[in-house]
Amino acid sequence: MTFEISPVGYVRSALKERTGAPKQGWEGAPDARLEILPEFAECLDGVEAGQDIWILTWLHEARRSVLKVRPRGDMRNPITGVFATRSPDRPNPIGLHRAKVLSVDAGGGLEVEALEAIDGTPVVDIKPVLDRACDGGTGLPILKC
Amino acid sequence: MTFEISPVGYVRSALKERTGAPKQGWEGAPDARLEILPEFAECLDGVEAGQDIWILTWLHEARRSVLKVRPRGDMRNPITGVFATRSPDRPNPIGLHRAKVLSVDAGGGLEVEALEAIDGTPVVDIKPVLDRACDGGTGLPILKC
Repeated sequence: MTFEISPVGYVRSALKERTGAPKQGWEGAPDARLEILPEFAECLDGVEAGQDIWILTWLHEARRSVLKVRPRGDMRNPITGVFATRSPDRPNPIGLHRAKVLSVDAGGGLEVEALEAIDGTPVVDIKPVLDRACDGGTGLPILKC
Repeated sequence: MTFEISPVGYVRSALKERTGAPKQGWEGAPDARLEILPEFAECLDGVEAGQDIWILTWLHEARRSVLKVRPRGDMRNPITGVFATRSPDRPNPIGLHRAKVLSVDAGGGLEVEALEAIDGTPVVDIKPVLDRACDGGTGLPILKC
């Protein structure tokens, strides 16, 4: 059984290659732009500057046959199953990135802070960050927390 | 352009139907079991009881043509783009669930706390929760924070 996913947009970034890219956003990643395809632009209605979002991507350069790695490519780390790591190499290479929205334009462009995904990475979903501790139990997105 | 994803396992839960299921784990969801397929069981090496993980699922009952919803199905909420909500109905219906691991067995079974996904939901990826504030900058998984 397989499921098909399609890009809803693409990452535009100064990061051009996987080699040398930061492994997490907070490790020096640059701000980046998400260009959402016109047919999905209305899915952004309600996404606001200042909000934290989850960006789900398709890590298009990943090797899907890899089941174990040394975390962070560091030979001092023990061989570990990929589900216990954030390795991009994994059976279904879906990237999960938390970022703050800097601006949204009506045409489907989103500027986001500190994103470690490389230029051209397909975006497959965007979700608001929820935080049980901050939303008063409403289940609604957190703007500020 | 499309990408193919395949289940790496399935959710086993007392929740049998989408109707009436909690929308978030902390809204009264039961503990559940993830059954990882034998060919992916070694991907779990290093996942430990007590750890928080992200479980990515394929929301197999979702309607993919839905671009806007009223959040939480509440008519008092304004019509909102799905990327600003956690609606399961969205172009690529990938579910994102944070849960604590209660136990792991060598055969590929994981017991997890408070999961809102229904029985039979395909699991497509598992990742450790990382937290910039808690990992001392190592980028390694958080066991306790």
